[in-house]
Amino acid sequence: MLQDQQYLRIPGPTPIPPSVERAMAKPMVGHRASVTDDLLKKIQPGLRKVFGTDQDVLIVAGSGTAGLEAAAVNTVRRGEEAIVIVSGSFGARFEKICLAHGIIVHRYETEWGEAFEPEVVRGMLEEHPGVKAVFSTYCETSTGVVNPVAELARVVREVSDALIIADGVSIIGGVEAKMDEWGLDVLVTGSQKAMMLPPGLMFAAVSDRAWNVIEANPDRGFYLDLVQYRDSIRENTTPFTPAVSLLYGLDQALTLLEEEGIAEVAARHELMRDMIRAAFRAHGIPLLTSDEAGSPTVTAVRPDDFDAEGFRSLIHREFGLAVASGQGKLEGKIFRVGHMGYCSPGDVLQMIALFELGIARAGKQIETGKGVAAAQRVYLQKGEQTK
Amino acid sequence: MLQDQQYLRIPGPTPIPPSVERAMAKPMVGHRASVTDDLLKKIQPGLRKVFGTDQDVLIVAGSGTAGLEAAAVNTVRRGEEAIVIVSGSFGARFEKICLAHGIIVHRYETEWGEAFEPEVVRGMLEEHPGVKAVFSTYCETSTGVVNPVAELARVVREVSDALIIADGVSIIGGVEAKMDEWGLDVLVTGSQKAMMLPPGLMFAAVSDRAWNVIEANPDRGFYLDLVQYRDSIRENTTPFTPAVSLLYGLDQALTLLEEEGIAEVAARHELMRDMIRAAFRAHGIPLLTSDEAGSPTVTAVRPDDFDAEGFRSLIHREFGLAVASGQGKLEGKIFRVGHMGYCSPGDVLQMIALFELGIARAGKQIETGKGVAAAQRVYLQKGEQTK
Repeated sequence: MLQDQQYLRIPGPTPIPPSVERAMAKPMVGHRASVTDDLLKKIQPGLRKVFGTDQDVLIVAGSGTAGLEAAAVNTVRRGEEAIVIVSGSFGARFEKICLAHGIIVHRYETEWGEAFEPEVVRGMLEEHPGVKAVFSTYCETSTGVVNPVAELARVVREVSDALIIADGVSIIGGVEAKMDEWGLDVLVTGSQKAMMLPPGLMFAAVSDRAWNVIEANPDRGFYLDLVQYRDSIRENTTPFTPAVSLLYGLDQALTLLEEEGIAEVAARHELMRDMIRAAFRAHGIPLLTSDEAGSPTVTAVRPDDFDAEGFRSLIHREFGLAVASGQGKLEGKIFRVGHMGYCSPGDVLQMIALFELGIARAGKQIETGKGVAAAQRVYLQKGEQTK
Repeated sequence: MLQDQQYLRIPGPTPIPPSVERAMAKPMVGHRASVTDDLLKKIQPGLRKVFGTDQDVLIVAGSGTAGLEAAAVNTVRRGEEAIVIVSGSFGARFEKICLAHGIIVHRYETEWGEAFEPEVVRGMLEEHPGVKAVFSTYCETSTGVVNPVAELARVVREVSDALIIADGVSIIGGVEAKMDEWGLDVLVTGSQKAMMLPPGLMFAAVSDRAWNVIEANPDRGFYLDLVQYRDSIRENTTPFTPAVSLLYGLDQALTLLEEEGIAEVAARHELMRDMIRAAFRAHGIPLLTSDEAGSPTVTAVRPDDFDAEGFRSLIHREFGLAVASGQGKLEGKIFRVGHMGYCSPGDVLQMIALFELGIARAGKQIETGKGVAAAQRVYLQKGEQTK
């Protein structure tokens, strides 16, 4: 195998488009130079579109977890109550963050692989009227579940003043998010998933009512104090040194999203999800989630007659094709396929063809080509024909 | 469609491996600095392996055509006779070059899409005993034919002292060439095909008996005078300014070929050829060449019930997948698929899946997936299993 031939299809980090790589290779500039201010100013409208918000989108040098922690420490004080919805590893991370900051957690854990039910949260809020925030995971990367965050926001707002906080790490950039319309109060994401960038940036947007809560909170820490980022971005700058190369890359990634159109990007991701699901279904290989809960960006497969880990290792060795293992309680039981960001329907057909070869190589009887054909049928039915 | 998503599957230029791109992005250095001498010295053993020769491989800043012209003007003088075998556009180019330099051409044109027959050349040499050189095309890029150059060399050497000259542009780097063993006198190639580099370099190797002829030739021109390149490369330098970035890239491309192994690289190309041929055959779509004459690097398809040009345009528009049109007398009648260099069996499966979608989109009844399955069967039978 040619050593450079690698297909990175884990649910993040994801491959970087060549034009984004080129943008990141620009010469370094001073982070307080006007060129950096201009870049931050140029980036803002595109980021707002991706989030579906009129608020400023704050840019922080840090990973997605920094975003989760910022969401928690800015909105909820030590000793206050929060509901944390755990539908997988990243929901569990929200809980750990809250506990690390002395927040009282009311935990709602779903079956892993299932979406949460907003009505359960309604009941919990009625039981715990002092809850200040509800922490949710928009796309649970560990299970491939897309959760109904818009519906959650509607339900929470009906019965409580609790803020609705969503971790959008593995989905923002791959869906048509409407933060303002849906009533989300804090939405955070990372750079290394559907945003088509390397890891190293997190983005956060905050509603007016959440800003009121945050401003009144005297204990927001320092590096992750979102007020500092808000006040700085209004001046087209950042409170601390920004990751300049990643900003150049972000500018180009937003240009790519803009050129394709956010709605078209979302449609591409849904199409890729439907193709990949149809392929595994054609072979009778179980998917972890229902169609309704299936994320447009990541799909978890739970094989019942071949070993997930052996398969992962085989396709990586033989084709340079990397997919992810299960996490937490799903470790060793599933494999997870990323189909987000710099990924096309053609790339999905390629992975399916290689999955089939890998399954055949692993010794399972399989009618190769059948999954590709199923995915091709989905494409021909749903894929938009280019004029 | 995401604008960066482009699949370049024309028979050259071909995609550049990321590690080669990174190598070419190294800072510029002086072409007479010792770092450039070291680079030229380091490159030489790898290039010799690719050519299958103990001779120095000369490196010239120029396109493949510069290589064809160098082969002609160095070995044959104005007014001397040569046989030119024309099995497509690039054979025809050799003829034009010879005529431009006042060489008397005895032309042997095959049916385009068929390989030449060395026995025909034997007959021509018997008829024209004054012939100084036989010009042949190893892989005819315009038809996807691989010609029997080793057999040609054997036959020519049996009946004549004529030099055997081969254009290896679209195949060297994708086969296990054995220039010395086969008895080729001049073998030239370009950088932008199976060598996995951008266009801009041509390579030439010359046998001892050809050097004798060349040295005795008083009229070798200047820029393409191969003696100058030979004398320079012995000092690890070049007579004129070399394309330094391409040399950095070449060093890395040779490293990739070395890591994979030249025999393994050749086997990968044969496998890709067999997969793509099986796919079109499964659909009953005619190939231009016989299996025996089919090149491991480029395949020409001659559809009989859909329009080649409309199909090419459709798959480029809808999938960003570029294949080449026909040239010369095959214009509009065929399309040509490059499967060389930075290309894997997985990439071949991807193109087949997209070809099927394109044919379906073009309105032809086609059982999508059938060609992919046929190619997958070839892979499972012939593809070497990675331990």
